[in-house]
Amino acid sequence: MIHNGLVLQPPNTPVMGHDTMMAVPSSRTPQVAMVGGGQLARMTHQAAIALGQNLRVLVNSADDPAAQVTPNVVIGSHTDLDDLRRIAAGADVVTFDHEHVPAELLDKLVAEGVVLAPPPQALVHAQDKLVMRRRLQALDVPVPRYLGIHQLEELGELDAFARELDAPLVVKAVRGGYDGRGVQMARDLADARDIASGYLAGGVPVLVEERVQLRRELSALVARSPFGQGAAWPVVETVQQDGICVAVIAPAPALSAQAGADAQQLALRLAAELGVVGVLAVELFETTDGALVVNELAMRPHNSGHWTMDGSRTSQFEQHLRAVLDYPLGDTEAIAPVTVMTNVLGAAAQPAMSLDERLHHLFARMPDARVHLYGKDERPGRKVGHINFLGFDPAAVAGLRERAELAAHWLSHGQWTDGWDPHG
Amino acid sequence: MIHNGLVLQPPNTPVMGHDTMMAVPSSRTPQVAMVGGGQLARMTHQAAIALGQNLRVLVNSADDPAAQVTPNVVIGSHTDLDDLRRIAAGADVVTFDHEHVPAELLDKLVAEGVVLAPPPQALVHAQDKLVMRRRLQALDVPVPRYLGIHQLEELGELDAFARELDAPLVVKAVRGGYDGRGVQMARDLADARDIASGYLAGGVPVLVEERVQLRRELSALVARSPFGQGAAWPVVETVQQDGICVAVIAPAPALSAQAGADAQQLALRLAAELGVVGVLAVELFETTDGALVVNELAMRPHNSGHWTMDGSRTSQFEQHLRAVLDYPLGDTEAIAPVTVMTNVLGAAAQPAMSLDERLHHLFARMPDARVHLYGKDERPGRKVGHINFLGFDPAAVAGLRERAELAAHWLSHGQWTDGWDPHG
Repeated sequence: MIHNGLVLQPPNTPVMGHDTMMAVPSSRTPQVAMVGGGQLARMTHQAAIALGQNLRVLVNSADDPAAQVTPNVVIGSHTDLDDLRRIAAGADVVTFDHEHVPAELLDKLVAEGVVLAPPPQALVHAQDKLVMRRRLQALDVPVPRYLGIHQLEELGELDAFARELDAPLVVKAVRGGYDGRGVQMARDLADARDIASGYLAGGVPVLVEERVQLRRELSALVARSPFGQGAAWPVVETVQQDGICVAVIAPAPALSAQAGADAQQLALRLAAELGVVGVLAVELFETTDGALVVNELAMRPHNSGHWTMDGSRTSQFEQHLRAVLDYPLGDTEAIAPVTVMTNVLGAAAQPAMSLDERLHHLFARMPDARVHLYGKDERPGRKVGHINFLGFDPAAVAGLRERAELAAHWLSHGQWTDGWDPHG
Repeated sequence: MIHNGLVLQPPNTPVMGHDTMMAVPSSRTPQVAMVGGGQLARMTHQAAIALGQNLRVLVNSADDPAAQVTPNVVIGSHTDLDDLRRIAAGADVVTFDHEHVPAELLDKLVAEGVVLAPPPQALVHAQDKLVMRRRLQALDVPVPRYLGIHQLEELGELDAFARELDAPLVVKAVRGGYDGRGVQMARDLADARDIASGYLAGGVPVLVEERVQLRRELSALVARSPFGQGAAWPVVETVQQDGICVAVIAPAPALSAQAGADAQQLALRLAAELGVVGVLAVELFETTDGALVVNELAMRPHNSGHWTMDGSRTSQFEQHLRAVLDYPLGDTEAIAPVTVMTNVLGAAAQPAMSLDERLHHLFARMPDARVHLYGKDERPGRKVGHINFLGFDPAAVAGLRERAELAAHWLSHGQWTDGWDPHG
């Protein structure tokens, strides 16, 4: 077992006191509501079952991944105050599957007495990249050099910024992006100006930043409760393709113990400084000279933490529930020396075999594959599931990753990239 | 990692062929229906989520443990043919949370084309202890010496049986028992006659058997698919109090590798001989002279397999789904050298703290406790949840068991039996 999980408890408070607990009537378990019915809500419900609960979800339709598996569903929109009130009614706490609820609606809910986790003043740092960057800079946290542009009239500032930077540029929409959407690599200054103009013309401010020379991307995942308890999982390496996470290796190979501990402490410090409640993912760039720079923040269960469902004593989904309910947090130790997660993405062309048939074949070849499917239709590039593999031989990370990638490619495309033929 | 899980595959059939698969339309994942809405159905639904499915359940009421967590519910009775038809309509396979569906209704469903797993001709061995004993005897499987009595008129045979046996007697109802109900230890022959008369007068045949001199109880848990694939988990020790399982230690401490393998092979052989589809639990007595004797069979996920939810690569709930759907079975290796499971039973007196408060305190003291609650009201002796603890130090089984028992007693009673005081 790996002992680089870390649980912090505030000093002199060895146990949750009654006085700090939410008032849950003795006859029932608490009710958590989640805005959004995607795979994160689906897997949070799965974790809620073990805690004697179910998850109430606000979904767009009865076909949403979470709506398929929980009986506690409100169909509506996360941009409609009345729908948000319906999901909040009778819930002990309301949390989020995504960052897209408008801030003014969140403020109204808080004014009406709804408990939001994370609270809006924390969540804004995951909703608005510019707010996040400024805050991190104020906290002396390393971030890429950047320029915020709020309106077309300010676009002229880009030239001076680019000259001073003398590096490739990335243009990001300040709000609304996910899975690489809203993030574009500019070919040159003119291209950066074009991309930025497009967002600004649509009323979306942009962040222009240096394209960091990176060795790889890492993620430091932590959870924090209102009581102030924090817990960090081992820092992982995330592998991206076209802006979408395709694989996670836990823990990050060849990351020094010091660098890993530093990243954990940074994420725990950020969670405390920003007042996060629930899971916080700190996406990091490891630069070619070994420094760690914060890229993005997410305040919810995160793709970089899916490995914890099978690879850690406490999954990020259970931990998120424990955090938002102010339960003491769970042990974040890794169960195996290495866990590899790969995402199953919808293929460009519909495979000949059904997903069910592909699953049969995967299970036949790899009985140790831990498959998690989301109940989504397959569309090109869409995340429809993930697979975890536990490795008990720390020296065999490469082989484990190869198997995990074979498995994901098979489930996506119905093709074994190593040419394996079960009947051959 | 412990390598005493065992996966058997039929020879010369390395992979599931298309021709043996169920015909699930390509646009959806298969639908499993389960008769009964208790904790076993609840946890099977939890496993179904990962496979991209949900579980349809036939429940007595909307408050049943499974009905709280799945949207796919039929409210009705397992003794009503129309209700059974409703749960079967459109399902790829119908399986069971308990053994109590009358055989004549099962036969009717089969005649109507419903796929039952396990099929009635297998399930009868878990429904009728006398049928089971006779079949096992015919298969030369060691069982306690027994006498079957079908009606009051045959009660006279008991005297001769008791004289020949010259051992303490146990009287069991042939059908309908669970958690120690329907099983009574007789003080003497007259008492045995009284107990048997009671059942017989109510129309329930009885099994009278020798009370085996036992060292401990074990359980050999396996799964079998229609394709003929079998998989066995490590053999576990089960600890009973008043006929109710209170703890499971996986693998069974100090069981020789040979005895463990023999028990696994016996269970796999029984699964094949009886035509089991799904999980089969073979409850065993280890006698004081080291022999293994079969006590009971269960053909569904079983309390002795709850440890697999956290302690094995594949949980019994996922495996049951894979088996009834004729998916290739999952890896049954243990993840940790030892896993201890303890059951949380309702206390005789309602504890002062709510279950939610007790859960807070448990998590505060033991962040590694893997808690599984069933959403049931607490009633004396009722199973309302269980807790798993993984141990990575094989020498520390006793300490792990002590912690697991402390935890379960705390959740049941709100008392730390070691006098622990968090504020002391």
